[in-house]
Amino acid sequence: MGSATGTLFRVTTFGESHGPALGAVVEGCPPGLALDLAAVQADLDRRRPGQSALTTQRREGDAVEVLSGLFEGRTTGAPLALLIRNADARSQSYDGVSGLFRPGHGDYTYEARYGVRDWRGGGRASARETAARVAAAAVARQWLAARYGVEVVAWVDEVAGERAAVEATAVTRAAVEAHPTRCPDPAAAARFEGLILEARKAGDTVGGVVGVVARGAPAGWGDPVFDKLEADLAKACLSLPACKGFEVGSGFEGTRLRGSAHNDAWVRVARTPEEALAHAPNPLAPEGVRYGAPRTQHAGGVLAGISTGAPLTARCAFKPVSTHFLEQETLTREGAPVTFRNEGRHDPCVLPRAVPLVEAACLLVLADHALRSEAVWGGIDQGRD
Amino acid sequence: MGSATGTLFRVTTFGESHGPALGAVVEGCPPGLALDLAAVQADLDRRRPGQSALTTQRREGDAVEVLSGLFEGRTTGAPLALLIRNADARSQSYDGVSGLFRPGHGDYTYEARYGVRDWRGGGRASARETAARVAAAAVARQWLAARYGVEVVAWVDEVAGERAAVEATAVTRAAVEAHPTRCPDPAAAARFEGLILEARKAGDTVGGVVGVVARGAPAGWGDPVFDKLEADLAKACLSLPACKGFEVGSGFEGTRLRGSAHNDAWVRVARTPEEALAHAPNPLAPEGVRYGAPRTQHAGGVLAGISTGAPLTARCAFKPVSTHFLEQETLTREGAPVTFRNEGRHDPCVLPRAVPLVEAACLLVLADHALRSEAVWGGIDQGRD
Amino acid sequence: MGSATGTLFRVTTFGESHGPALGAVVEGCPPGLALDLAAVQADLDRRRPGQSALTTQRREGDAVEVLSGLFEGRTTGAPLALLIRNADARSQSYDGVSGLFRPGHGDYTYEARYGVRDWRGGGRASARETAARVAAAAVARQWLAARYGVEVVAWVDEVAGERAAVEATAVTRAAVEAHPTRCPDPAAAARFEGLILEARKAGDTVGGVVGVVARGAPAGWGDPVFDKLEADLAKACLSLPACKGFEVGSGFEGTRLRGSAHNDAWVRVARTPEEALAHAPNPLAPEGVRYGAPRTQHAGGVLAGISTGAPLTARCAFKPVSTHFLEQETLTREGAPVTFRNEGRHDPCVLPRAVPLVEAACLLVLADHALRSEAVWGGIDQGRD
Amino acid sequence: MGSATGTLFRVTTFGESHGPALGAVVEGCPPGLALDLAAVQADLDRRRPGQSALTTQRREGDAVEVLSGLFEGRTTGAPLALLIRNADARSQSYDGVSGLFRPGHGDYTYEARYGVRDWRGGGRASARETAARVAAAAVARQWLAARYGVEVVAWVDEVAGERAAVEATAVTRAAVEAHPTRCPDPAAAARFEGLILEARKAGDTVGGVVGVVARGAPAGWGDPVFDKLEADLAKACLSLPACKGFEVGSGFEGTRLRGSAHNDAWVRVARTPEEALAHAPNPLAPEGVRYGAPRTQHAGGVLAGISTGAPLTARCAFKPVSTHFLEQETLTREGAPVTFRNEGRHDPCVLPRAVPLVEAACLLVLADHALRSEAVWGGIDQGRD
Repeated sequence: MGSATGTLFRVTTFGESHGPALGAVVEGCPPGLALDLAAVQADLDRRRPGQSALTTQRREGDAVEVLSGLFEGRTTGAPLALLIRNADARSQSYDGVSGLFRPGHGDYTYEARYGVRDWRGGGRASARETAARVAAAAVARQWLAARYGVEVVAWVDEVAGERAAVEATAVTRAAVEAHPTRCPDPAAAARFEGLILEARKAGDTVGGVVGVVARGAPAGWGDPVFDKLEADLAKACLSLPACKGFEVGSGFEGTRLRGSAHNDAWVRVARTPEEALAHAPNPLAPEGVRYGAPRTQHAGGVLAGISTGAPLTARCAFKPVSTHFLEQETLTREGAPVTFRNEGRHDPCVLPRAVPLVEAACLLVLADHALRSEAVWGGIDQGRD
Repeated sequence: MGSATGTLFRVTTFGESHGPALGAVVEGCPPGLALDLAAVQADLDRRRPGQSALTTQRREGDAVEVLSGLFEGRTTGAPLALLIRNADARSQSYDGVSGLFRPGHGDYTYEARYGVRDWRGGGRASARETAARVAAAAVARQWLAARYGVEVVAWVDEVAGERAAVEATAVTRAAVEAHPTRCPDPAAAARFEGLILEARKAGDTVGGVVGVVARGAPAGWGDPVFDKLEADLAKACLSLPACKGFEVGSGFEGTRLRGSAHNDAWVRVARTPEEALAHAPNPLAPEGVRYGAPRTQHAGGVLAGISTGAPLTARCAFKPVSTHFLEQETLTREGAPVTFRNEGRHDPCVLPRAVPLVEAACLLVLADHALRSEAVWGGIDQGRD
Repeated sequence: MGSATGTLFRVTTFGESHGPALGAVVEGCPPGLALDLAAVQADLDRRRPGQSALTTQRREGDAVEVLSGLFEGRTTGAPLALLIRNADARSQSYDGVSGLFRPGHGDYTYEARYGVRDWRGGGRASARETAARVAAAAVARQWLAARYGVEVVAWVDEVAGERAAVEATAVTRAAVEAHPTRCPDPAAAARFEGLILEARKAGDTVGGVVGVVARGAPAGWGDPVFDKLEADLAKACLSLPACKGFEVGSGFEGTRLRGSAHNDAWVRVARTPEEALAHAPNPLAPEGVRYGAPRTQHAGGVLAGISTGAPLTARCAFKPVSTHFLEQETLTREGAPVTFRNEGRHDPCVLPRAVPLVEAACLLVLADHALRSEAVWGGIDQGRD
Repeated sequence: MGSATGTLFRVTTFGESHGPALGAVVEGCPPGLALDLAAVQADLDRRRPGQSALTTQRREGDAVEVLSGLFEGRTTGAPLALLIRNADARSQSYDGVSGLFRPGHGDYTYEARYGVRDWRGGGRASARETAARVAAAAVARQWLAARYGVEVVAWVDEVAGERAAVEATAVTRAAVEAHPTRCPDPAAAARFEGLILEARKAGDTVGGVVGVVARGAPAGWGDPVFDKLEADLAKACLSLPACKGFEVGSGFEGTRLRGSAHNDAWVRVARTPEEALAHAPNPLAPEGVRYGAPRTQHAGGVLAGISTGAPLTARCAFKPVSTHFLEQETLTREGAPVTFRNEGRHDPCVLPRAVPLVEAACLLVLADHALRSEAVWGGIDQGRD
C-alpha cells in the first residue's frame, strides 16, 4: 500500500529514480474532458530539474505519454495511464553511497521495512517520484477548471526563515513563474535567491515554506469526521518529500489569537442566482448559505472539515535538502561508522520545485472531494415533499 | 464517507452530540488481546467534560459498553462495538442558535453540504464525537502496548503563544495528568492556567499547541508514497476539531536550519539481540539497521515516510475555541444579518481536553501501520536463498 | 477486515449470536430521506426466526433502535447506527459442542484464523449476523425506492432440486409473502413445504435456490473492470451464510445456448422523455440508449458489468442447513475423533429466511453503485462544446 | 472506480483494445521475490489469441515489460508496473459497428454510463483487457508458490452442456495444456473440439464452464462477514468477460443433497509438525485444527468464508461468445433499428482462453487474502499468558 491516493479520483503511481520509467494511473476522471496534453506537459516541465541555477542540473525531458483512457482527444471514463520514461539516469553517481545510510534520507528506513533497497538515485524514495503525481494532478487541474472554475496556485512563501508578503486571494501563476525562486513578491524573491546561492556556495542547503491557495471551490466539499478537507490536504502535503509541517488558514499563528478575534463573521454578499447556485450546489442548502461569505479569512476556507466557499489557504514546511556537500557521519549497512560526502547533481533548496508539488497535492485532494460531493448531491431526492 | 479511518485497524464512528448515543466499531484488533475495560473507561474519562474549572461543566458519565467482539475477556478478531449513551443533553440551550450560522463552527458548511443540520449541540460536528475515537483508540493503546511496547503521550505545549519546556523522550502520562492544564512543565502550567482563566473571565477563549510523542515503535512502519507515516499522522490530527496545523520533528522551525545542521547522523548503539530484532522486525533488514539510531532528533522519528525507531514527535495547533460569550455578527439561514451571543457550557480553552484526542489520533494511525507492516513482513519468504 | 461492504453507501456490521447486541453503521445514506422506521422493522421481522413451522423456533424480538443520523425523522448525511439487542440467547444449548468442530460450520476455520472462537450459537459466524445486514438494507431499500423507484424482490425458486415457475418481471413481495415457504408459485410452494417438513421429520435438512429481481435500476450502473455490477452482486450473495453459488441472467443454463440464440437484440421502445431520462440519467448518453431495450432477457440486466435498464435477475444456491439432528463424526479441539448429535432450535431449510437476505445483499450493492454513478454523472461538464 | 482489485495485494489495470498499451500496477507484492520474467511471459502467452484453430487469429506478441519495482531481479516492495504494448490493432474492422450497439456487448451500457465509447475493438470492455490481469496474476502466482507452495490450476470442464470428468485434487497444468481445448479429460476434449469447430463452421459460438482448483492454501484464509474467501472468488470470476455464474464446492448441485449427506466430516490426518504448522499458521490454533481435514469435499475448501486447508474448488459459467457471424438486429446510436453482421477475428468459444483468466482471478484473490491473514497472525501477541 501507499502508492495510491483518492477514492473516486484515484491515482496510483509507480517508478523509481533510475528505473525504466515512472507513471501514474488516474482512475475516475469523468468522461468527456477534452484533455490538453500540452498543458499536462507544461505542468510537468515546471517540476523538471535543470530549470535554473537554483535547481539540480540533472536533465530529464520528462515527456509524458498517455497510454489509455483517451479517445478522439477526450477522456472516456476509463483509467488514464501516464508514462514518463527515465532518460538521464546516472546510477554510477550513487555507487559510493550504496552501502551506507545517508542521513536525512530513506536509505535506513527502506531497508528496515523491505530488507532491500534500490539505492540508485534514492529509488522509490527519490523526489523524482513526484513527476508522476504532477502529471496526474495536471489532469485534475484541467477537470477542476472546466467543471468548477477552480484554480490552485502555490508560491514560495519563506526561505530560511525570511518571509514574503503575498496576497492569497490575488496571486497568479504568472506572478509566481516570473522569478526562478517562484516567489511572487519581487523583493523577497531577490532575498531568497541570495540565500539559496549563498548556501549553494557553502556546499549546504536551505529550507522554507510554500503557500498555496485554491480559489473557486464551492461551499460543501469535505467529509466529516475523519476525511475533513483540511485533513486530506494535510496528508497530501505531508506525503511530499521533505515536507515536515502543514497549516490551514491561520495555522500555528492563529493559536495566539483569542476566539473573538479569530472567528470569521458571516456576512451577506451580492451574488447572481447562478453564482449562488455555484457557491452551494446542493439546491436544498438554505438561502443564507448561498448568499453568505466569511468577512475575514482565519479559517482558511474550511469549517468543521467542509469548504466554506472562501479561498482555501494553507502553508507547507519543507526541511533543508538532506543532500548537502559537506562531510557527514553515518553507518554502513553492516553497522560500521563511516564518513562520506555527497557528489552529483542536487538542489540547494527544494522550495522552487516544491511549488508544483504542493499544487499537485492539493489538486488531487480537491478532485477527489469534488466527486465525493457530487455523489452526495446526486443522491438527494430533490423532488421530495 | 468520512466516518471511518484505517485500513487494517479500521474504526468507524457514529453519533451526534444530542442524539441517543455515540459509538465506534473497531475492526481488525487482533484476537487474543485481554481487553482491560477499566482502562478503556479511564481513557474516556480523561476526555470527559467537567473535570476542572478549565473545562466545560457539562456532565457526561460517558460509560462505555462493549457490544461485541469479546469472549471470556479477550478479543476474538470480530469487530468490537463500543457504545456510549448520551446522558446530559440539554438541546434547549441551542434553540437560540438553531436558525443562524455560528462563526467558527460547521453550521454553515454542514448546511451547504447536506441541506439539513442537526443543530442540537453541533450535531455530528460537535467535539463530543471524539468520545468515540478515544474509546476506539483505548483499544489500540492496549494492543500496541501488549504487542510492541509502544506508548503514546501528549501534553499541552503552548497556550496563547506561551511555550512550555518538555522533554519528549522522557515525559510521562503521570506528569501530564498532574496539573489540570495537562502541561507537565509546572511553571508553564501555572502560566497557562492564568491565561485560560483570564480569557474565561473576559468571556473569551484561547488556543495553543499540543505536543505528542510515540515511543517504542520499531523502525519500518509507514507506507511510501502517499501513506507516509507522518502523512497519516497529519491527517489524523487535522481531523480533530479545531486543529489547524501539524508538524513532525523539527517542523516549521526546522525550515530555518541548514541541511548540514538538520540532518541527524546515524550512529551505532548498544543493543541486545532481542532489542535489535524488536527494532527492525524484518529479519532481512541489514545489521546496520538493527544497531543504528539517529544521534539528534530533527526528523521526528520518520524518514521518507517510514519510522526510524527513534521517538516519533509531533505538534498540533488548535485554534481558540469558537464558542466565546461576546457578541458576534452572522447570518440567519434565510440570509439576514443578525447579532447573537452564545450561552451554555463551553470550554474557554480546548487544549487540556485535546491531549487525549491527539493521543487517540496517533494511536489509531500507529495501530493501522503496525498491522500493515505485519502484512509486509509476514509476506517475505525468509527461507529463500 | 471483512465486516464492511460498499464504498459510498458503506455498511459496517458487528455482533455475535449470543453477545449483547448486533448492529450496523450505515455511512453515505444521502441526507433528507424520511426514514420509515416501521418499514425497517418490517424488513427485519421477515428475517426473524420463529415465523412458521418451517423455521427455527428461537424467539427474537429483533427490535431495531436508531442511535444516530436522524433528525426530525430525516437522514442528515451522518452515519445511521442501527442497534438490535439479543434477547433470547440460550448459550447453554451449545455447551455440548463448544469443544468440537461441527461439520459444515465455521468452528474449525474460525479457530484456524483467530486461535479462539466464541462458540455460543456460532458467534460471529451465526446466521444471526444477517439481522444487521437486513436492517441496513432496509435503509437502502427506502432510499432506492424514493430516489429511483427501484424495487428488489426475491423468492424461493428451488428446494431440493424441485423448481418453481416464477415470472421475474412481475413477481411481487405480496405474492412471495403469501406462503410460508416464500415461493410465489402456489403449486411449487406446496411441494416445497412437503419436502421441508419431510426432512424435518427425518431430523435432516434440505437446500435450494433463491431467485431475485431488481426492477427500476437505470441503464449505466456498474464499474468495469473489477467492480462490475454482477461481480459485486455475486460477492454480496456469496457472503451470505450457506450460499454456494450465484448466477446472473441465463447463468449456468445459458452456457448451453449458442451465441446467436443467447444474444438479446436491442429494440426501440416507446418512452416519454421523462422515462427516457430516468432510463439513461447521463444526459450525454445518445438517443439510442434512451429509447432502447433488450428484447429477451438472457443477459439478466447487465452487459460488460453495467446495467442495461432491463430487470436485473439472479439466482443463489444455498446448501442444505449444516445443523441436522442425525449423528455426525468430527474432531475435538484436541484432535480426538468424536461423534455427536445437534440439539436446540434450528431451521430444517434456510430458504424461506434466505429470501430477505438475498434482497438485502442486492440492495446494498445497488445503493452503492447508484451513488458511484451519481459521482460519475455529476462530474461531467454538461455545458461543454 | 472499478479498475483495481485487492487491498494488500492490489492490482490496478489500464488500457483499451486498440489504444497504445495495456498494463497493470501491482502494489503490495512482498519484497525479495526473485521474479521469473520468462514465467510471467509464459502465463501471458497462454492467454494470447492465435494459439490454435479454436481461437481468434488476431496476433499479439503481448510482450511484457517491467517498468518498476524490480532491483537486481528481485521485488523491492515498490509497485511493479507491467506494460504490454498493443501491436496488431486493426481498428478499421470496427468501423461498421461504431455507430450501433452490438447485442451481448457493452456498447450500449458504456454509452449509457459514460456518454462516450471507444468503439475500436470494444475499447475498455474488450477481453483484451484481461492481458493486464494475467500479467499481474503471474506475479501473484510466483509469490504464492514461493511463500506457501500454493498452486492454482483451471481447465475446461463443460462445453455446450457436455461435461468432462476431471479430478480436482490431481489435475495438472501440463494435462490441461496437452490439448488445445484445455480440457484434461482426453475423451471430453475431443468432443469439445468437435462442438467448437461445428459452431465455428455455422458462424456461431458456444459457451461452457471452467473448473478451477487451488491447492496448498493453509486453513485460515478469508475474512468474514462480507469478504469471505468464496465471496471474493465469486466477485473476481464474475468480473471476467462473459462470466455469468460461479459456484464453490458442491454449488448448485449440492442444493439437492440433504444436510446429513452434504456435511464433510472432520477426520484426523497424519502430518509432520512442519506440515501441521503450514496447515494452520497461527500458532494459537488448537491441535485439532492442525491435524484435521474434511473427509469429503462438498464445501470446496471453505467454511464460513475461511479456508479449511482442503483444496479450494470452484466452477465458472461462460456464456457463448457474443460475436458470432450471423445476422443480428439492433439499434443505432440514434435509436434506429438496423441489421448487421460481425466481421473480423473472433473466438468461436471463449473457454480455452478463459482458463488462464479464471486462474488469474483466483490468484489475485488468494494473494490478497494471504497478506490479510499475515496481518492478523502477525498482530497476535504470542507470548501472552
